[in-house]
Amino acid sequence: MDLNFRDLIKKSKLESLLTRGNFGLEKENLRVNKNGELALTLHPKEFGDKLKNPYITIDFSESQLEMITPSFDTVEKAYTFLENLHDIVSTTLDSEYLWPQSIPPILPEEKDIPIGIFHGEAGKSNKEYRERLAKKYGKKLQLLSGIHYNFSFSDKFLNKLYEEIPHGSEFRDFKKFKNHLYLKIARNHFRYGWFFIYLFGASSPIHGTYKKECIEKMAQLKDNSYYFEDTLSFRNGICGYKNLGEIYVSHSSLTDYVSDIKKLIEKNVLQEAKEYYSSIRVKSKSKTNILDALEKDGIEYLEFRSIDLNPFSRIGVDILDLKFVHLFIIYLLLKEENNEFGESQYKNAIQNQELLASRGRDKELLLNKGKDLKITAREWAEEIIDEMTGYFGELGILDDKYNEIINFQKEKIKNEDRQYVSRLLKGIKDKGFINFHLEKAKSSLEESRKKSFALKGYEDLELSTQIVLKEAIKRGVKFEIVDRSENFVLLDNGIKKEYIKQATKTSLDSYITALIMENKVVTKKVLSDSNIVVPKGENYDDPSKAKSDYEDYKNSGTVIKPKSTNFGLGITIFKAGFSRNDYEKAVDMAFNEDNSILIEEFIEGKEYRFFVIGDETVGILHRVPANVLGDGKKSIEKLVQIKNENYLRGKGYKTPLEKIVLGESEKMFLESQGKNIQYVPLSGEKVFLRENSNISTGGDSIDYTDDIPAIYKEIAVKASKSAGAVICGVDMIIKDIKNPNPENNYGIIEINFNPAIHIHCYPYIGTNRELGGKILDALGF
Amino acid sequence: MDLNFRDLIKKSKLESLLTRGNFGLEKENLRVNKNGELALTLHPKEFGDKLKNPYITIDFSESQLEMITPSFDTVEKAYTFLENLHDIVSTTLDSEYLWPQSIPPILPEEKDIPIGIFHGEAGKSNKEYRERLAKKYGKKLQLLSGIHYNFSFSDKFLNKLYEEIPHGSEFRDFKKFKNHLYLKIARNHFRYGWFFIYLFGASSPIHGTYKKECIEKMAQLKDNSYYFEDTLSFRNGICGYKNLGEIYVSHSSLTDYVSDIKKLIEKNVLQEAKEYYSSIRVKSKSKTNILDALEKDGIEYLEFRSIDLNPFSRIGVDILDLKFVHLFIIYLLLKEENNEFGESQYKNAIQNQELLASRGRDKELLLNKGKDLKITAREWAEEIIDEMTGYFGELGILDDKYNEIINFQKEKIKNEDRQYVSRLLKGIKDKGFINFHLEKAKSSLEESRKKSFALKGYEDLELSTQIVLKEAIKRGVKFEIVDRSENFVLLDNGIKKEYIKQATKTSLDSYITALIMENKVVTKKVLSDSNIVVPKGENYDDPSKAKSDYEDYKNSGTVIKPKSTNFGLGITIFKAGFSRNDYEKAVDMAFNEDNSILIEEFIEGKEYRFFVIGDETVGILHRVPANVLGDGKKSIEKLVQIKNENYLRGKGYKTPLEKIVLGESEKMFLESQGKNIQYVPLSGEKVFLRENSNISTGGDSIDYTDDIPAIYKEIAVKASKSAGAVICGVDMIIKDIKNPNPENNYGIIEINFNPAIHIHCYPYIGTNRELGGKILDALGF
Repeated sequence: MDLNFRDLIKKSKLESLLTRGNFGLEKENLRVNKNGELALTLHPKEFGDKLKNPYITIDFSESQLEMITPSFDTVEKAYTFLENLHDIVSTTLDSEYLWPQSIPPILPEEKDIPIGIFHGEAGKSNKEYRERLAKKYGKKLQLLSGIHYNFSFSDKFLNKLYEEIPHGSEFRDFKKFKNHLYLKIARNHFRYGWFFIYLFGASSPIHGTYKKECIEKMAQLKDNSYYFEDTLSFRNGICGYKNLGEIYVSHSSLTDYVSDIKKLIEKNVLQEAKEYYSSIRVKSKSKTNILDALEKDGIEYLEFRSIDLNPFSRIGVDILDLKFVHLFIIYLLLKEENNEFGESQYKNAIQNQELLASRGRDKELLLNKGKDLKITAREWAEEIIDEMTGYFGELGILDDKYNEIINFQKEKIKNEDRQYVSRLLKGIKDKGFINFHLEKAKSSLEESRKKSFALKGYEDLELSTQIVLKEAIKRGVKFEIVDRSENFVLLDNGIKKEYIKQATKTSLDSYITALIMENKVVTKKVLSDSNIVVPKGENYDDPSKAKSDYEDYKNSGTVIKPKSTNFGLGITIFKAGFSRNDYEKAVDMAFNEDNSILIEEFIEGKEYRFFVIGDETVGILHRVPANVLGDGKKSIEKLVQIKNENYLRGKGYKTPLEKIVLGESEKMFLESQGKNIQYVPLSGEKVFLRENSNISTGGDSIDYTDDIPAIYKEIAVKASKSAGAVICGVDMIIKDIKNPNPENNYGIIEINFNPAIHIHCYPYIGTNRELGGKILDALGF
Repeated sequence: MDLNFRDLIKKSKLESLLTRGNFGLEKENLRVNKNGELALTLHPKEFGDKLKNPYITIDFSESQLEMITPSFDTVEKAYTFLENLHDIVSTTLDSEYLWPQSIPPILPEEKDIPIGIFHGEAGKSNKEYRERLAKKYGKKLQLLSGIHYNFSFSDKFLNKLYEEIPHGSEFRDFKKFKNHLYLKIARNHFRYGWFFIYLFGASSPIHGTYKKECIEKMAQLKDNSYYFEDTLSFRNGICGYKNLGEIYVSHSSLTDYVSDIKKLIEKNVLQEAKEYYSSIRVKSKSKTNILDALEKDGIEYLEFRSIDLNPFSRIGVDILDLKFVHLFIIYLLLKEENNEFGESQYKNAIQNQELLASRGRDKELLLNKGKDLKITAREWAEEIIDEMTGYFGELGILDDKYNEIINFQKEKIKNEDRQYVSRLLKGIKDKGFINFHLEKAKSSLEESRKKSFALKGYEDLELSTQIVLKEAIKRGVKFEIVDRSENFVLLDNGIKKEYIKQATKTSLDSYITALIMENKVVTKKVLSDSNIVVPKGENYDDPSKAKSDYEDYKNSGTVIKPKSTNFGLGITIFKAGFSRNDYEKAVDMAFNEDNSILIEEFIEGKEYRFFVIGDETVGILHRVPANVLGDGKKSIEKLVQIKNENYLRGKGYKTPLEKIVLGESEKMFLESQGKNIQYVPLSGEKVFLRENSNISTGGDSIDYTDDIPAIYKEIAVKASKSAGAVICGVDMIIKDIKNPNPENNYGIIEINFNPAIHIHCYPYIGTNRELGGKILDALGF
């Protein structure tokens, strides 16, 4: 008995659940140097332990990076995470690039290709396995890289669908049912696997340093690269990434599958199950003892392995292709099997795939559709697309989004110039194999750098949190967003777990430390108890008491402010010699905002934010009001426009800096200087557009970490420690930063328990102080 | 040259600063058992180390408690603090009382009176000093107890006054000026010291077990006590607390003073400066090397030592008397000295004091006012009072408050029946010396018990904070209220400092722990990650997603609530089988309160608050809605009235429980039961007046700490630890508290980082779980 999934789904109204799933992506890229030669350097230490980093590791070679996303409930999310991995890896590499092509770049001699280096007991088997592969297939073949696509249906879909299985059916056993479902897809994928290559093939020319035997009979291009005109995907072709000899593995049942693989291992055809290089692979929950795990718990998900790296996509794969794969998997589930799938059918399927991969650009090429039935790839592809849209229409899930995804492929089918490999050959013939790909690699890196402050798909989180998460990913610390709107994250490296909120609220600080810093009165007490200079002054709960102390303040600069300040409301700053009347008004204003106010001496100087972690000041930042620097030619308006083009400037706090707006306030401020936006500042003339230095109104952030004498850094650390803090933002006023004698030269006005870290990482002028990493270091990750 | 302070003050308009000062009080009380015998037990261990507790220690005898207030800027505050000390000490004693009389109670034989026990090197000199005193004066004399009153003018007053001293004056030296000012007061106090005894004398009958030689010639009262009819203050009299022989110490200058004391020590008349038993003592900042400190830094404050314990005041001293002392000190400053104050004047002053103390009730008794000038105490007292009011009037500081204070004393002068000793004799003749004082002691204790949850003068703080502070005082941990409105306190035992906020926000918990508990979603995650049962359910940010999950909830009891709950707004509880329409309305209601909501299974059972500290559940509390228990006679209205008389019930959250109000809600709730407030419940019938169990609406708090199986306490600890908490309030629902198997019998709905402690200390039914002390223990105090 077989199951008709189309009927079952319709009957149980699971059409919308059918489209839910779990998606994960893996991508390999070789590292190359600026000449397009395989990088012979070590895997960057920034990525931590290769065996433990779940996101960034290597495949066969030390130079072959592998990026792995977690599982997400949409393919967009997996894609976005892969984009982050690509960006993080790219920007971490030192003078190296990610090679954007499945076919390797300029290779050294076989013996000089570095096999992945692994240490310790755990690394030993990894190393030996790779050495055996090198001996068997040659190292060069193992360098062929690509995309793997992992998919499973949602548990809810599987469970509900299972509920529909009639009692007494052989599939009234959930494991059997699931295995049957996934194996059906696997068989159909073999049948239609050529279609993937037809759509996604993008590996045609090969470089002359690749395996000599493959190059024979190929045409040479100018830069020592070679090609066949008709090849669609060298990687999936006869000379590509495949097992030696002809291998057959049954996909009729899981038992047969496991038994066949075991036989191959016994016969020494394969070393391990994972050496079976098929275009689709059934996967178990466990990563070790795969076959046993499959038998015990059944198939957990499917891995689709034949997608080539796409050099035309910045990160090597197009989201529309990935979305299509999802729809195609659904199609493979829905599509009835018209025949058994025995050894001959299996071999025919493999043959179709290899044929198409090697010669698929030949329009006359005929594939074996079935017994004595030959058909061109294009005709067959059109049939499949029509059937897909038919099924989806029947199930009522064919909406605009799906049509867009399908039409994207239809275009490729209709117009072969749209096929990646066609575009690739064109570009390579023009620029050369190495140059073409190097250009792609460089422009991708440029893009990665521009957005390096953000974690894609997490832009709703605060920048500081995004920076910490990127650093976590880089070093392989797993994370879970526990409460998104609160920036509440769980970090877990397998050894320890740490919750953090808003990047700097952690277990490192005690609760009372945060409360001390939150409270201005207590803060002043702890600071002055530690002999740190704070503005002299008092806290008042009673307006009349505050007013009666006028005499005590009138002779010096004075700040009057509510105890809990919000956006600067109710704050007045006086110069020495202010009147009693003005003083009393200011007191009333402050009391309008709070029941308790502070009256303090005003300390002259510039304000600097010291970021302290533990015993160290790790960053110092100064903010400057929005401004432009003249060149004697351009107007203020033009200068602002140019300054705003900086990728660090955006709108709505999604970027480290905000764009300068030439609004009413700015115009009035210019007017007060006798200028307007058409004014052309002299060369070197700095024109301020605002009085306030907030980043939110276009201010600049300037890194002073290396420009301030050590003594002030020590004072900041002492201030942090006075409140018992580990992570602390200290706001210090300094009169003269050149003066290494702090006496009468500084005062601390605030310490903060939730200091932003992004301002120290992406300043307008200065160095990235890598605070995300320092926070993780402090947390012990 | 001398200084005319009246003129100086007027000239520099310091009248209002004149009345500011620093006030401290000390009080000794003997401990007695229920028979009025000196308690021979050890100083209670609850008060910690006698040498280190700055508030509660002993004087000469192990049984002679001494209570010491810090310095305050008003005498009311010092009085209030003394009241607290009195209450704390009284309620800590086990079956003993504070003897409310300067004269000792029933004493054992001299040899059995326990001298204070001190340990270690630091205690050695204390012990030896006392042993020498015992030998010299006899132990019984050392048991005479009283009030000491410490006073200094405000720094601001002294500084401003000093500014008025003309250049070239010998007092243009601040130390000299201050010494001169305080010594003038001291001399005047000698001159008018008898007046204190006249007003405050309250130690007349003595018990037969006191020194035999003193009893000779006295009349006997029925209970083995003895008296002279005319004695005002036995303690200040000839047989009272004074040095042996005639001692003279010059008070003309500090140099002379120090030199005279040193001579007395050299001659072995005194062991140390502090053995000089004068009615006033000049004091230095330092407590050790007093004489050196006086010479070095000058006089810091004055100690007035002749005030008897007042058995008519609950704590042994009347606030109006204390306020009068302050006014009298001002008078002593203002009053010109008409003559030198040499040895003869000194001895005359002492003579007047002793005379008045021993025979002051004799109306004909004449005091030596000056050379050959005799006057009755009453006439002289009236002169002084008139002069005081004259001075104060002249300075414009004689307001209603001052008049009230002065009139209180005027009444005593006019009417000798108002004198404490007169009232005392009357009472003692009636009830007997021992019984009279025991009754006073017992009723004072009763009062202390009734308000034991509150710390007087700090009622604006949360009850939980008051409880912690009381415990800090008890064990001698100093505290400073750093921010009153925020309940932010610094604790300091001389070895370590700890800031705490709202009693339970401390350095023990990490910041992230508090944030985890604050967030319902994160809380549920940490709990369920630790395999603790929490209500099943989900967090929704999207109303339509929440609504689409109706099917998942409809079949069980369900709670729908905003993620951040405030006063229960937006919460709906459904029983199983609710309609989609009602469900959707409830979802909308919750989203009205927050952007994020929780939909959860409703767990059946009663809710208990587990208070966890570290590895232990230290209290379990259950709240019951406002109710009355019938006796078959009284109406609900009457039963409520009686229930409200409990001292734990008050209004406005100043007490552990709130009074029940019979308002609209209660009447409606009764109506729904077919009752009204005139209904007379049967004997044993419990009638609920509300549905909600909040304490704020008259609910009862019931201690279950000893009634719940250990396994639930362990689960509460595990819950606390799952968030990394040390201090934690765990809200657990339990179906059946008799069932020691937690499976399907409990669920945790919340964990709290700021659990109230007072509810566990002052429950309606149950035991005080002493959480204040446990918090301090956990903090290492």
